[in-house]
Amino acid sequence: MAVTDEADGVCGQSILDIVKECDNFPYHNTSNPEPLETRMASTWQFFIPDDPKPYGYLTSSTVDKMPWTPDFEIISGPVKQVRLSPKSGASTPEACQVAMASLISLARETGLFPELGKRGRELYSVLGAPYPFKFDRKAHALFGLVTRGVHMTVYTHNVDGEMRIWVPQRSLDRPVYTGLFDNSVAGGVGADEAVLDALVRESAEEAGLDEGFVRRAARACGALTWFNIKDSRSGSRGMLHPGIQYVYDLEVEADVVLKPVDGEVEKFNLWDVETVRKTMAQKKFKPSSALVLLDFFIRHGMIAPEEEADYVEVVSRLHRRLPFPVGA
Amino acid sequence: MAVTDEADGVCGQSILDIVKECDNFPYHNTSNPEPLETRMASTWQFFIPDDPKPYGYLTSSTVDKMPWTPDFEIISGPVKQVRLSPKSGASTPEACQVAMASLISLARETGLFPELGKRGRELYSVLGAPYPFKFDRKAHALFGLVTRGVHMTVYTHNVDGEMRIWVPQRSLDRPVYTGLFDNSVAGGVGADEAVLDALVRESAEEAGLDEGFVRRAARACGALTWFNIKDSRSGSRGMLHPGIQYVYDLEVEADVVLKPVDGEVEKFNLWDVETVRKTMAQKKFKPSSALVLLDFFIRHGMIAPEEEADYVEVVSRLHRRLPFPVGA
Repeated sequence: MAVTDEADGVCGQSILDIVKECDNFPYHNTSNPEPLETRMASTWQFFIPDDPKPYGYLTSSTVDKMPWTPDFEIISGPVKQVRLSPKSGASTPEACQVAMASLISLARETGLFPELGKRGRELYSVLGAPYPFKFDRKAHALFGLVTRGVHMTVYTHNVDGEMRIWVPQRSLDRPVYTGLFDNSVAGGVGADEAVLDALVRESAEEAGLDEGFVRRAARACGALTWFNIKDSRSGSRGMLHPGIQYVYDLEVEADVVLKPVDGEVEKFNLWDVETVRKTMAQKKFKPSSALVLLDFFIRHGMIAPEEEADYVEVVSRLHRRLPFPVGA
Repeated sequence: MAVTDEADGVCGQSILDIVKECDNFPYHNTSNPEPLETRMASTWQFFIPDDPKPYGYLTSSTVDKMPWTPDFEIISGPVKQVRLSPKSGASTPEACQVAMASLISLARETGLFPELGKRGRELYSVLGAPYPFKFDRKAHALFGLVTRGVHMTVYTHNVDGEMRIWVPQRSLDRPVYTGLFDNSVAGGVGADEAVLDALVRESAEEAGLDEGFVRRAARACGALTWFNIKDSRSGSRGMLHPGIQYVYDLEVEADVVLKPVDGEVEKFNLWDVETVRKTMAQKKFKPSSALVLLDFFIRHGMIAPEEEADYVEVVSRLHRRLPFPVGA
């Protein structure tokens, strides 16, 4: 269903369009293999020692610019591969971490990778690695590794029983997805962090919600998975980003007010469902966060299978099976 | 997490095992292509006129036994295909329906296809076909076409606030999945039926629930998709079955009682969550219906990401993207 608004002359995106805005890496498709084959011809698979499974995809642009050290094998055909294979010792977890940290440090010095910023602060895990393996969060983008976020929809009902959803606008100072609308609470899950702990931390840092209350009342509702080729709003156009978003719901009383705390949020709005849907259709949400709201509407029966020809396609794509390990 | 019960000496399946019990058709996997390639080498893709997309997969056993008419082209390589291509006129929707109905009638006469029964009663749609195209529900199994079901979890809370779930046992007289446990309400969606109408009908027919109440109070919560290679309990061992299950929740008061109506249910049980989970782990549920309960537990926060290493893999596989059209 496309959201239309004749008064505004706005004809928005269908819900499948909203999904494709984020989940836009080609799928395996026997009756139309060309889009995936073309994409893979310029994509480098990233391997760690002693493991046949790829952990991420790099673009040719990244591979060309990267100041590779002898710890990495760059194999250009027939399948393009970057293999971490530490020369400075055995293929131990420690040697892998050292090799990766050295490379990231060199890459940062080149000044060719704005994604890396001036310094790394947070560590992210290589998900599903057979040993603990973590490095600079910002370098995950370059290697196209799976990242984990935690996203919560905070909602209430007004005196007439109508649902209202807390919708922050991202700060106009943030370098990525500047000024777009977002989920009530959203943030990354650190390397050594439990998902619920990350949610509790972000809820306090970004929205001023009480930690004990969130821990007690937030409800885990699943996880979304998608594979995004970044657009210019991300600041890293063309980079490959497979993502997991753990999804939580939190119903609050009408007197609970979310407030910006750490400067990442410009302001919080309390919107009715129609306003949220219209704003999504106008592409004014951060693309991956729009998916969390679509899933919310589907789980709450506000998008019904009878009304939506793309219902099954949408629900499947919200839970894409990624071509990388995703286990804890 | 495997459910263990030391008192009983029962060590059950993990939740990923429960998913794999139903979603067991191989996935596309670049680092291990062999299982899918082997399977496809003995699988025939079914095409309808003027459409490059396959609509179903037939087994070699079905293709060998079928009394093909001149309306079908059987192409054995390099990609095995069965192409509906009506000779009795143009490739009109009517010619397709006639060709298919004739074939099914001949196939039934051979007596080689117990799946077809003695006669067809219900029609199912070929999902996503560019024109209305429907035929005998029972023949869908032979062509490996996508079927649509509607499944509802009916639950209540007792005086202590603990959740109880209505769990029917399938009749001991039913020929398939005999005596296994099932979802509170479950049934197929007919060719010309809206999903909610099918739910309302099945709720009355199988559980004696009031139609107006179900229409008003049942909540659509998404759709599960999986690709099953049938086991012997289905009565059609080895057949290929891609399925969609539209999922609904219905919370009822403690005094609502579900009762068998049409003979498909042996009896209804009102179980606590622990009993449901233990019974699932013991493989005593119909495999696809166990997935509906897993999804219920995930959406209700009763399986949390911190507790379950396979959380993301499970959620993705509950929403498999099928290699066939799934649009309305």
